[in-house]
Amino acid sequence: MKRIVVLGATGSIGRQTLDIVRAFPDEFEVVGLAAGHNVELLLDQINEFHPRHIFCISRPDPLPNGVTFTPMEDMVCLDDVDTVVVATMGSVGLIPTLNALKHGKAVALSNKEPIVMGGAIIKDYEARYGGEILPVDSEPSAIWQCLRGEENEIRRLMITASGGPFRLTPLEDMAKVTPEQALKHPTWHMGKKITIDSATLMNKAFEVIESHWLFGVPLDRIEVVVHPQSTIHSMVEFADGSIKAQMGPPDMRLPIQYALFYPKRRPNGMIPKLDTSISHSLTFQPLEPQRYPCFELAMEAGRQGGSCPAVLSAADDVAVHSFLGGKIAFTDIPRLVDRVLSEHKRTPGLDFAELLDVDLWATARAEELVKGPL
Amino acid sequence: MKRIVVLGATGSIGRQTLDIVRAFPDEFEVVGLAAGHNVELLLDQINEFHPRHIFCISRPDPLPNGVTFTPMEDMVCLDDVDTVVVATMGSVGLIPTLNALKHGKAVALSNKEPIVMGGAIIKDYEARYGGEILPVDSEPSAIWQCLRGEENEIRRLMITASGGPFRLTPLEDMAKVTPEQALKHPTWHMGKKITIDSATLMNKAFEVIESHWLFGVPLDRIEVVVHPQSTIHSMVEFADGSIKAQMGPPDMRLPIQYALFYPKRRPNGMIPKLDTSISHSLTFQPLEPQRYPCFELAMEAGRQGGSCPAVLSAADDVAVHSFLGGKIAFTDIPRLVDRVLSEHKRTPGLDFAELLDVDLWATARAEELVKGPL
Repeated sequence: MKRIVVLGATGSIGRQTLDIVRAFPDEFEVVGLAAGHNVELLLDQINEFHPRHIFCISRPDPLPNGVTFTPMEDMVCLDDVDTVVVATMGSVGLIPTLNALKHGKAVALSNKEPIVMGGAIIKDYEARYGGEILPVDSEPSAIWQCLRGEENEIRRLMITASGGPFRLTPLEDMAKVTPEQALKHPTWHMGKKITIDSATLMNKAFEVIESHWLFGVPLDRIEVVVHPQSTIHSMVEFADGSIKAQMGPPDMRLPIQYALFYPKRRPNGMIPKLDTSISHSLTFQPLEPQRYPCFELAMEAGRQGGSCPAVLSAADDVAVHSFLGGKIAFTDIPRLVDRVLSEHKRTPGLDFAELLDVDLWATARAEELVKGPL
Repeated sequence: MKRIVVLGATGSIGRQTLDIVRAFPDEFEVVGLAAGHNVELLLDQINEFHPRHIFCISRPDPLPNGVTFTPMEDMVCLDDVDTVVVATMGSVGLIPTLNALKHGKAVALSNKEPIVMGGAIIKDYEARYGGEILPVDSEPSAIWQCLRGEENEIRRLMITASGGPFRLTPLEDMAKVTPEQALKHPTWHMGKKITIDSATLMNKAFEVIESHWLFGVPLDRIEVVVHPQSTIHSMVEFADGSIKAQMGPPDMRLPIQYALFYPKRRPNGMIPKLDTSISHSLTFQPLEPQRYPCFELAMEAGRQGGSCPAVLSAADDVAVHSFLGGKIAFTDIPRLVDRVLSEHKRTPGLDFAELLDVDLWATARAEELVKGPL
């Protein structure tokens, strides 16, 4: 039995993680669940999965019987925990991820921002304390699967991008895009922050930076290819030019399950299979850079490295929530991120405390800038 | 240095094998070359690669200096041979393949008929004498690559088929198809026999039977999917529903090189790379069974097993050469194969001598039937 903790249990990835636990009741024990404000759903999950530890920003009162209220950063270090599923949003997952690694846990990581912000520290902790990052996000999981049995002869990674809901929108209409339109992702159903990041392709740049850290591939050997059908989740080109691609329906339960059972694979009737009795058409095209200014901004921050990706992530977080709150236009997202990045003075290597300082500074500065004209 | 023998050196795969040797002169020593009737090209190859042993059906006279005339079945057993490339046609490769395995050699096998005919014996020899079959054919190589690091959790294999030159030809026109038309394969340039087998999809059924033996997957878990672009060379669906596909330009030098360097991959500027700066469209569709009667005939022979696949292969060989010689129509190929198969009384397990007997009987019977009306 694998003893797991799920952070972000009531979010999209958290709920799908519990779908997997439900499908394999003899394989998992849920030790802890952490959520934000969805107390009602968390109480249902407590009823069903009987965790001994819970955390919730909106604390349920009274606590259900037999349940201890435990902060996330403590829950992930408990002796009877094997795997921590980090399915939180934004920078929230950073400290629990580092704490889990410090205690030698496996971390199934779907939350990209921690590794974008602190990739160097995360890799350092992984190497130093014997913990392990297991990618859960669909694209890094695809690359991880393609690299099985041959991790060292990579020519390039090709990460696929659906192109989001505005792939074909006239560029002059982009400023008028509403949150409702931006939240309609063509192929994936996800949380709000990541859905907006998918519309700007910020999310894709995060995946590039994440893959750089996870697989040790230089950024200039990671390409993004637009693939509107989201059937091929990513590809690896090896030294000889041979390409392996991982494919499947756009269902996050597959990469979640892959990470939880790794290195085994388990049949799961719940996950749809590719139907070969019908015709399929898969297309690929190069990225249009002028359509996705966030992408190049983010890649440049990734190339700069040091403290820049942390600033990028913090500024984007404020920008996306400001857009969702109706405070700025869709096209202001890259403007805001760009302004915060250009005001920032890069620190080359930074320790954990410095990383948190940078995050605080960039968040505060972005929030200030949102108030004025961009 | 890997010491190799190339059987079928002047054919398409043989020449491309020598392209790889030419690209990596410090990695390979050519110990022997065997060819059929193209003496002129063989003499050029002898001049360039200096093998000590040669074989040729049309014997060059006089033999070049320093060269010994050695039958194929002896050449493959020489002490100073590591890897035997079997790139012969039809049943010719069977005895050398078995002899090579018996002497513990690695056999890079592009010739499908030996494994279609004698899969059980080949696998038995492989297990018993410590030799090893390395698939060279593009589709089995794709599957082999996808299975790296995880060979045991296969749900199904999906072998792609271009559909050949008559994928869109009206069915009523198929009887009038000429050898010239049938030899124009849309994506691959290959020898004549395999090109006709590709037009009838007999070749695809051979690949299914070959993959069954190579990877130990039951025939009912191997599907064929029509993919006219020949970019995805085959796919594996794992137990959890995740699919891995191997892709690349239709260039046989890639699978040849993969087999020769296995388990390493080596950069080779000669092999074109997937160009992600342009758009691509990959399509898949189910097979039209009425268009390819050879396919179902062959699959049934595969399911029957025992001596049936050997009869299938021998009858097809006669049928294809009769079609190429203008003796029978394109649509007579399945008729002839069907007649020989239906006259044959299946033997369940057969040893090597029985296999040769079956091959002789089926060849003779097919040649007899060609003379009369089908």
